[in-house]
Amino acid sequence: MKMRRSERIVAITKILVDKPYRLFSLNHFAEKFNVAKSTVSEDLAIIKRVFAAENMGKIETLSGAAGGVRFIPDKADYDIKKTIKYFCQQLSDAERILPGGFLYMTDLIFSPELIMEVGKIFATKFADLDVDYIITIETKGIPIALATARAMNLPVISVRKDNRVTEGSVVSINYVTGSSKKIETMSLSRRALQVGSKVIIIDDFMKAGGTAKGMLDLMKEFQTEVLDIGVLMETSEPENKLVSDYTSLITLERVDEKNQEVVARPSDWVI
Amino acid sequence: MKMRRSERIVAITKILVDKPYRLFSLNHFAEKFNVAKSTVSEDLAIIKRVFAAENMGKIETLSGAAGGVRFIPDKADYDIKKTIKYFCQQLSDAERILPGGFLYMTDLIFSPELIMEVGKIFATKFADLDVDYIITIETKGIPIALATARAMNLPVISVRKDNRVTEGSVVSINYVTGSSKKIETMSLSRRALQVGSKVIIIDDFMKAGGTAKGMLDLMKEFQTEVLDIGVLMETSEPENKLVSDYTSLITLERVDEKNQEVVARPSDWVI
Repeated sequence: MKMRRSERIVAITKILVDKPYRLFSLNHFAEKFNVAKSTVSEDLAIIKRVFAAENMGKIETLSGAAGGVRFIPDKADYDIKKTIKYFCQQLSDAERILPGGFLYMTDLIFSPELIMEVGKIFATKFADLDVDYIITIETKGIPIALATARAMNLPVISVRKDNRVTEGSVVSINYVTGSSKKIETMSLSRRALQVGSKVIIIDDFMKAGGTAKGMLDLMKEFQTEVLDIGVLMETSEPENKLVSDYTSLITLERVDEKNQEVVARPSDWVI
Repeated sequence: MKMRRSERIVAITKILVDKPYRLFSLNHFAEKFNVAKSTVSEDLAIIKRVFAAENMGKIETLSGAAGGVRFIPDKADYDIKKTIKYFCQQLSDAERILPGGFLYMTDLIFSPELIMEVGKIFATKFADLDVDYIITIETKGIPIALATARAMNLPVISVRKDNRVTEGSVVSINYVTGSSKKIETMSLSRRALQVGSKVIIIDDFMKAGGTAKGMLDLMKEFQTEVLDIGVLMETSEPENKLVSDYTSLITLERVDEKNQEVVARPSDWVI
């Protein structure tokens, strides 16, 4: 159908938002809606203004032959704080305490709406990096990695804790979990990752950092550069982790089984 | 800012699309944009018309006191076929054949953009069901379940193949894998699921249906009603599966290791 401006910008908004980071040429829209490129530019100016005013992410126009327009789902600072505070509030519930002082958080990690917002936070933090893949390790890292990858338009690679026939030939390494000092194995299909790639590691939880350290070692086997590590939650103890460069959103101060108390707060950079 | 119509409908489109199935009252938008409800109705009529004309999903307005407007990411038939055919085409690549006649598909399942479309297909198929949770089993079911749940605004529950302390007390069952006749264990945290819930099971692959059968048995332990089972890919052999009611998107006819040939086709209902 031949559209009016108000109709066209509905369609363009939907197309851009559906595929974050995907670059669309102005010609693409000019042809699709049978209008001049200058008309598309005017449409985009309106969308851009609204997204900026309403903190809905960024509409970025790149000029030149390889140019076009794309949606970057950046979250504003206040919105990042709001999401993380909400998450902390949900976590700080004595009902979540499990025997042994563990904290039940599976339900939150598997809430698509909440975890999509967490993914946008990591995407905002890592927006300036030139990344090829998001790497995670099963199981609870997967939703967070998918949400981050969705917001950055990247593929996810999931490292396994076992070794399945459906992965083909794999590279396995043994690693020592930082806190319980157990020896575990992680493996990744040889074909999963191109040698020389740049990756970000995403995981749900870091205590001593043994798993993250293992993943760094595994990435070395693939001659892969790890640009950053994002974890949803770290524990404040031990203070010195086995890896030094990482970004956490939440810091778990304590889970007090006896007094039935959980203290989870936004990590320092969030405040 | 006080917005003009063309600006307002950009913002409303973004808000609706960001949260599929979430019901927003007309008052919500009237207050947010400081306009009359009748003006919001006119805005929504434009958005609705464009979404219908461009097959971008459905804008549904519900009247009455509990009424409002919501975005339902239904995929049109032609679009469902297109996505499934694309998936089949990607799968039918001899490079994907692994020793033992297995097929490598992890990269496709972990491609957020592609798997979001698969999720929308399941959401379209199951749109009329009154569902509380999407249930899956680690690992490769998770991305598909998350994408489906995201499109339906539901939480995901992931059944584990091991038994972790961070899940609290669990219900475990043993099940026999349908094809290799191995005894495996699956477990689910007691607190994951409310007794009496209605669920849809989503998984990546079904051969004989042993895993799906196991999940049905596990759901019985939680007195949960399974409304349907969605699997991304089933094998054509064995024809009789251990479960009878399920919906697959792709049927794998054969993986011929010797002649290096893969035949994957859209399942019968898709054509």
